[in-house]
Amino acid sequence: MGRRGTIVTFGEAMLRFTPPSLQRIEQASAFELWVAGAELNVAVALARLGEPATWVSRLPDNALGRRLAGHARANGVAVDVEWDPQGRLGLLFVEVGQRPRRTASLYDRDASAFATLDPAAFDWPALLDGARAFHTSGITPALSPACAQATADALKAAQDAGCHTSFDLNYRALLGTSEEARTKVEALAPQIDTLIASAGETKAVFGLEGEPADVAAALRDRLGIERVVISSRIDTGHATQVRRSVCVDADIVQADSAEFVTVDPLGGGDAFSAGFLAGLLADGARRGLELGGAMAALKQTIPGDFAILDPGEVEELAGGSTYAGTRR
Amino acid sequence: MGRRGTIVTFGEAMLRFTPPSLQRIEQASAFELWVAGAELNVAVALARLGEPATWVSRLPDNALGRRLAGHARANGVAVDVEWDPQGRLGLLFVEVGQRPRRTASLYDRDASAFATLDPAAFDWPALLDGARAFHTSGITPALSPACAQATADALKAAQDAGCHTSFDLNYRALLGTSEEARTKVEALAPQIDTLIASAGETKAVFGLEGEPADVAAALRDRLGIERVVISSRIDTGHATQVRRSVCVDADIVQADSAEFVTVDPLGGGDAFSAGFLAGLLADGARRGLELGGAMAALKQTIPGDFAILDPGEVEELAGGSTYAGTRR
Amino acid sequence: MGRRGTIVTFGEAMLRFTPPSLQRIEQASAFELWVAGAELNVAVALARLGEPATWVSRLPDNALGRRLAGHARANGVAVDVEWDPQGRLGLLFVEVGQRPRRTASLYDRDASAFATLDPAAFDWPALLDGARAFHTSGITPALSPACAQATADALKAAQDAGCHTSFDLNYRALLGTSEEARTKVEALAPQIDTLIASAGETKAVFGLEGEPADVAAALRDRLGIERVVISSRIDTGHATQVRRSVCVDADIVQADSAEFVTVDPLGGGDAFSAGFLAGLLADGARRGLELGGAMAALKQTIPGDFAILDPGEVEELAGGSTYAGTRR
Amino acid sequence: MGRRGTIVTFGEAMLRFTPPSLQRIEQASAFELWVAGAELNVAVALARLGEPATWVSRLPDNALGRRLAGHARANGVAVDVEWDPQGRLGLLFVEVGQRPRRTASLYDRDASAFATLDPAAFDWPALLDGARAFHTSGITPALSPACAQATADALKAAQDAGCHTSFDLNYRALLGTSEEARTKVEALAPQIDTLIASAGETKAVFGLEGEPADVAAALRDRLGIERVVISSRIDTGHATQVRRSVCVDADIVQADSAEFVTVDPLGGGDAFSAGFLAGLLADGARRGLELGGAMAALKQTIPGDFAILDPGEVEELAGGSTYAGTRR
Amino acid sequence: MGRRGTIVTFGEAMLRFTPPSLQRIEQASAFELWVAGAELNVAVALARLGEPATWVSRLPDNALGRRLAGHARANGVAVDVEWDPQGRLGLLFVEVGQRPRRTASLYDRDASAFATLDPAAFDWPALLDGARAFHTSGITPALSPACAQATADALKAAQDAGCHTSFDLNYRALLGTSEEARTKVEALAPQIDTLIASAGETKAVFGLEGEPADVAAALRDRLGIERVVISSRIDTGHATQVRRSVCVDADIVQADSAEFVTVDPLGGGDAFSAGFLAGLLADGARRGLELGGAMAALKQTIPGDFAILDPGEVEELAGGSTYAGTRR
Amino acid sequence: MGRRGTIVTFGEAMLRFTPPSLQRIEQASAFELWVAGAELNVAVALARLGEPATWVSRLPDNALGRRLAGHARANGVAVDVEWDPQGRLGLLFVEVGQRPRRTASLYDRDASAFATLDPAAFDWPALLDGARAFHTSGITPALSPACAQATADALKAAQDAGCHTSFDLNYRALLGTSEEARTKVEALAPQIDTLIASAGETKAVFGLEGEPADVAAALRDRLGIERVVISSRIDTGHATQVRRSVCVDADIVQADSAEFVTVDPLGGGDAFSAGFLAGLLADGARRGLELGGAMAALKQTIPGDFAILDPGEVEELAGGSTYAGTRR
Repeated sequence: MGRRGTIVTFGEAMLRFTPPSLQRIEQASAFELWVAGAELNVAVALARLGEPATWVSRLPDNALGRRLAGHARANGVAVDVEWDPQGRLGLLFVEVGQRPRRTASLYDRDASAFATLDPAAFDWPALLDGARAFHTSGITPALSPACAQATADALKAAQDAGCHTSFDLNYRALLGTSEEARTKVEALAPQIDTLIASAGETKAVFGLEGEPADVAAALRDRLGIERVVISSRIDTGHATQVRRSVCVDADIVQADSAEFVTVDPLGGGDAFSAGFLAGLLADGARRGLELGGAMAALKQTIPGDFAILDPGEVEELAGGSTYAGTRR
Repeated sequence: MGRRGTIVTFGEAMLRFTPPSLQRIEQASAFELWVAGAELNVAVALARLGEPATWVSRLPDNALGRRLAGHARANGVAVDVEWDPQGRLGLLFVEVGQRPRRTASLYDRDASAFATLDPAAFDWPALLDGARAFHTSGITPALSPACAQATADALKAAQDAGCHTSFDLNYRALLGTSEEARTKVEALAPQIDTLIASAGETKAVFGLEGEPADVAAALRDRLGIERVVISSRIDTGHATQVRRSVCVDADIVQADSAEFVTVDPLGGGDAFSAGFLAGLLADGARRGLELGGAMAALKQTIPGDFAILDPGEVEELAGGSTYAGTRR
Repeated sequence: MGRRGTIVTFGEAMLRFTPPSLQRIEQASAFELWVAGAELNVAVALARLGEPATWVSRLPDNALGRRLAGHARANGVAVDVEWDPQGRLGLLFVEVGQRPRRTASLYDRDASAFATLDPAAFDWPALLDGARAFHTSGITPALSPACAQATADALKAAQDAGCHTSFDLNYRALLGTSEEARTKVEALAPQIDTLIASAGETKAVFGLEGEPADVAAALRDRLGIERVVISSRIDTGHATQVRRSVCVDADIVQADSAEFVTVDPLGGGDAFSAGFLAGLLADGARRGLELGGAMAALKQTIPGDFAILDPGEVEELAGGSTYAGTRR
Repeated sequence: MGRRGTIVTFGEAMLRFTPPSLQRIEQASAFELWVAGAELNVAVALARLGEPATWVSRLPDNALGRRLAGHARANGVAVDVEWDPQGRLGLLFVEVGQRPRRTASLYDRDASAFATLDPAAFDWPALLDGARAFHTSGITPALSPACAQATADALKAAQDAGCHTSFDLNYRALLGTSEEARTKVEALAPQIDTLIASAGETKAVFGLEGEPADVAAALRDRLGIERVVISSRIDTGHATQVRRSVCVDADIVQADSAEFVTVDPLGGGDAFSAGFLAGLLADGARRGLELGGAMAALKQTIPGDFAILDPGEVEELAGGSTYAGTRR
Repeated sequence: MGRRGTIVTFGEAMLRFTPPSLQRIEQASAFELWVAGAELNVAVALARLGEPATWVSRLPDNALGRRLAGHARANGVAVDVEWDPQGRLGLLFVEVGQRPRRTASLYDRDASAFATLDPAAFDWPALLDGARAFHTSGITPALSPACAQATADALKAAQDAGCHTSFDLNYRALLGTSEEARTKVEALAPQIDTLIASAGETKAVFGLEGEPADVAAALRDRLGIERVVISSRIDTGHATQVRRSVCVDADIVQADSAEFVTVDPLGGGDAFSAGFLAGLLADGARRGLELGGAMAALKQTIPGDFAILDPGEVEELAGGSTYAGTRR
Repeated sequence: MGRRGTIVTFGEAMLRFTPPSLQRIEQASAFELWVAGAELNVAVALARLGEPATWVSRLPDNALGRRLAGHARANGVAVDVEWDPQGRLGLLFVEVGQRPRRTASLYDRDASAFATLDPAAFDWPALLDGARAFHTSGITPALSPACAQATADALKAAQDAGCHTSFDLNYRALLGTSEEARTKVEALAPQIDTLIASAGETKAVFGLEGEPADVAAALRDRLGIERVVISSRIDTGHATQVRRSVCVDADIVQADSAEFVTVDPLGGGDAFSAGFLAGLLADGARRGLELGGAMAALKQTIPGDFAILDPGEVEELAGGSTYAGTRR
């Protein structure tokens, strides 16, 4: 019973605990409570742009799980969750750092309600009924064999339903080796219309290095995916910028985001994915880079993982993008 | 496009600011942020019990209005709001006191987006499509002539649609004289199936005094409303209890709630209304008193206006109710 | 019953609510409480320098109004307020942003106790008795026709009493068109000794562009005001600086402030006005630029609108100013 | 340059640090900041009732001293302070307990700016010019010989100026033996019009026990003070009440306060003193007991030492006092 | 490498998260951070009394584990922990309620570093070298078969080393059935010198009901344990008291604790165990009831699980105990 | 009774109060609580690296003193404190600023338990038994003549015991003139193996200016101390770096630290001292510069004075140091 035109995302979300005021976990006497999860972050960012978005997941039916679902609904996402009467919620402890101290994440997601899902419990044709697009990331299949099966099922069903399918590589060394990640994405590639990745990930997983445009082209050729988007960070000393290239057929479009001051880096890539999808589906890849770059820059000025944005401010910033298009 | 079986409530909601830790407004250097509004409180409490609930209202389309709507959605309420591109959000400043200092409310709701609504903008047959019941309170028609018109329209449409209609007297001296309140409820009475009031209100508005059972019977006769519920507080020194009577035809059912320690009194009556409605519609007035009494007692142990409850704990407490039924 | 030598300011002040830790309004579960209002900010900054300062205004006689007045008194300002037994206090919701997210203000000041003042209730000769100077800004006459009348009355009375009069252009698009602002300041110009404005405002209101020195000279000629001060921001990438020029007769003095990191930009211009006035009255415009530049830079490192400063640290920073004086 | 009709109080005030949420000092990672000091508390409570009140003291001229003075001014007190360029501010750490854990105070006030005052620096005739009454407590002379001298000077000057003089016994074992306290109050007695004490203190200092009325009469006879007021706590199990008697000549008036729930006990006695003085000076001792009892009960429901009250709520509660007058 | 005369405790500890100000988990935007664990609580309470105490456990070697160990050390406990390079820390989410809302605990401790310990890794003779007593509770063997083995090993080694051994029944339905609990304690009974339990637990596990004295005697007979202590809560309406009986041979000593207001109930029983042990070892069971009753009452007025007490305040309260000794 | 191989530090520590979120002391309604003290900071930083560290000091035996000692123990430091039954704890109020507002410290440490120590109470041979090194700073002898005597005793005993001795110049103008500081360090020089200072201090105390390498060499010659380390800050506009040189014999090693963003500058020098000592003792001065530079950079990104670090992150950053060695 999907909503007309919705974009469906699928993945785990966790409660995220962060010490206030740049403290370390070992100092904190209280933790701020956020919600984190790549695919839910994408759904939230889409909903903030005014796009109907549905998040499919599995949560324990306890106060923590309800807290998480409420936070998603508060941000306008339709929550289509299987409630697990027993399981545990995945947790994430994040310290936000300042140079040279890194933002550090401590995951506690083993054996979560999501990781222990039953793939047969998800009726994908029904979940995707009326959907326009489907999105997930490399984290989902890496969580457990059952999750890998569910990811494959979902992508297949999405392709069958005529949805646009997108996949964020999101390689996490804690969840598996780079070989495992590569094998998984190669197997899923035939069902993927758009692949999104960072330069760091493509180096780790595919051994590809170079300018975003070159990596995008090489990866497109290698995986046979129609559209590949690659991002690469530029540190300007006092702020950050991201250069992103998307390769479709022989065309490459490239754009540098606005400079931004990082208040909380988590969820920046997910905000990009959301903006890219919204722009791509409305008006092509160039528009996707515009919206995605603006959303990612704004998101990183906001505490927490969610892109609590306003279409107006996104549009205002997106208007200032600079492009460099090439034909290879 | 109502949801099947939903209970629709209609009224204003406000951001509520409360100084932390029993401070006074004049001391505070920060305010905690809650959401308050009798009819939204009822919808939230219903949703927490697992009843589908829809809140119809009007909000300004700015960060404050969106914050409020998000808070309602996070608690499981379907939000059917007309977004006002210009208006302001009603605000409420609440100091929670301890004996003999009273919990004090300072309202700043004049000229709010809700008060300046256009009755014609609400398509009640559509809003009530599929609904099982409609609920509002005496605050709504007291806010402005336009709100009074919308209330009358809604009750009429609900009656026409075969919904159960309930009305909480909710007399607020700041919003009008007791004569005005009486006149309004008398005019609406033919469209009301269940009237809910406190002993204090019925004294102020109708000059009726006495035990809840007597007041309920007298008011039922006077207004010709099928079902009247009256509540009266009992202070036990170290805790509070509420005695409530409902009069239907010649039958009167009475129940005393569990004793409770008051952490935040606001929203207690609304939690009762929600529990009463849910119980009444499922299994009659006796069940309504059980659920309503348990929910009101639990609510008042929780900060904020919302009854953030669990069906299990409500049921556990409701099971312990003691009754005294009489036939007059 | 003014205090000898006091500087009197006149205008509205509001409670200001700001989410903590760079959060957005839609995320916040609590708001920090500050006090904001251009003319009160000027009075506070003067008092912190050791200058007697009196703030004339109108406030509702409720807990919010008293909270605001207490905050002003705590900072050493003499509060000469007409207490409105009924009205509401103006409110301001501010999100402090980081690049590229802007610091955003959401005003809720319509129909405030100040905006609904009665000009006849202010006995200006008495309020200005013994005063040395009078200051207000373009916000005050823009709030309502009554406020415009009171502003004109006050400036006239100040001129009659031999006070120095200063006026900060403070153009706010939300309060009126640029034509209205221009018309108002042109009408008041004969009663103004010193006009203070930013380059952005003079472009919006008078269509004047260019270096601060040129704009100051042009505006002086156009309005026939003895002294015009123009400020223009310089973003150095990692910090901010302001270049300011004051034009008196044929003389132009220009100074660049120290670089500063912006913690809270609100009240920066007001701190400048205070320092400029204090310096000007004591030792001329050059000293005014010194003190004003130091105070504005320091203010913006401090949360809230008030310049909670120490004369010693202002002097220490003011000593390092660099000048460029020219004769046109 | 006193204000007409002001009530002048004289004593030390301290910054008070309290762990939040009933935590112990050893647990806290932050302390809430309050201001404490018996005589300043009295001045604040008077100002809140609308009585002009002036606090005479000595403070270090640093950020802590200014913070304290600002807090006093914010509450409407005229601050007449000698600023010490060097000294330190007295500090007080308070844990608020729940039965059977006591509210515990840890003082750090040795060698404070106040304790090291120079009695000759206080020009009492000028400070008391136009004053209606003078109030201090037994803490002030106990702080140092210089403070004892200043207290004697002040009381003498107040008597000479025709002010009503009041003295709260306020015995603190940490500041001296009971013999020292007794000797000091006996020496000052000829300059005291009204003595205020608790039953616990009169037992410790004078060895007097019994009902408040009897103790008041006995102490009046012993010290030759015109008016003696004695308070005694009554614990009702779930709340607290205070019985107070005032003995003047052969008349004894007695009243029991309203029951109150204790949120913060500090400053309760000072709120009583303020209310008693205001009532006494306006309408005699009976009115004093009414106002004082209401203010002390309300104060103890409020965090911090200050009686942040409203004349309306005091009056409402004072109206409910019950009396028992006797003639001995 | 034990410390001379130390009391060694063995068990799991968890980070405990609690929403501030009586909020529910679903409302909270931040959680306060405490440390919880029955046997660590006992060690902390002993250390606060001045008894050397050592806590033996297993923790993950990450920021959360180090945070927990630091909190234990800060309270004076010697921490003898096996650091697990991989595992996860057990977590506990606690909502503190007010009547009739219960204090609710949500455990997330499955597969923790402690539960997955290797019994062979604990060299008990070395860990107990020089120890005076050993304490654990029924939670420890219930966590996993490995934990059950380690508990048996520890009790055996303690008995061999001549340590006094004590065991708190601590039945947790979430960790196993009552049969499993009974079987485990029956198997361990020969190694236990003192068994501590509540009336609720003995009813659930052994089906024994009645006054504490009777239950203690019956359980002593049944298990053949030298000394059995039984506690039973008495709710006085506005406060709580606990009646406790200890049965040794034919002697029964009974004492009622002071009344206390509950701020945080967790850790109350552990504080009793610590005080009982300290008193028992110093001066027999009567002294144990005195100290234990005082510590448990004081603990429950303090936020968090730890008994952050002072020997002086414990002694002061313990002095007021009332006894009823009987010979059966 | 020292621990084998421990590094012993000796000095005062204070509770440090800091307003949250870059507020000024005059604005704050609460203060965050930290612990500060150069020599304790060094001990904490050593312990975080895995080096056994013991802090010798004197504290008042009250809740504040225990709070401080607990904070030290929580961070792994062995606390060897003389408990003063009467005295007061030194306090420090710190405002963290942003350019151009300085981080400001307000000390309140006069007559503290530490400053009033009895040198004879410290049995240095026992305290240093088994120690590898001893560290103190110029603050300690500046606190009082008794402290100066204790410092001399300690250094002498350390030298006799064959410990490496290090001394951080730590010149504080508030504690004495530069002549006094120079005289004291000259007298202690024969007992010092390593002297650590900043360029600012050496200019103030010895009148030496220039590049760190030159100052280090000059000071080594002048004082006859084997090893002198000099630090000098480099402001890069958007971040900070420190250049440090150590001169031993004719060898000079120089290294520039990583760039860092300053969250809290206090304790940066102490973190360097700890890292330098650990590196020096393990592998010579070059390794000392590596570890010290990394620790100081990381520390300044962390709120509070303590270097809450992880050996892994220190090593990772230390690996990137760049050196410039010269032979003079």
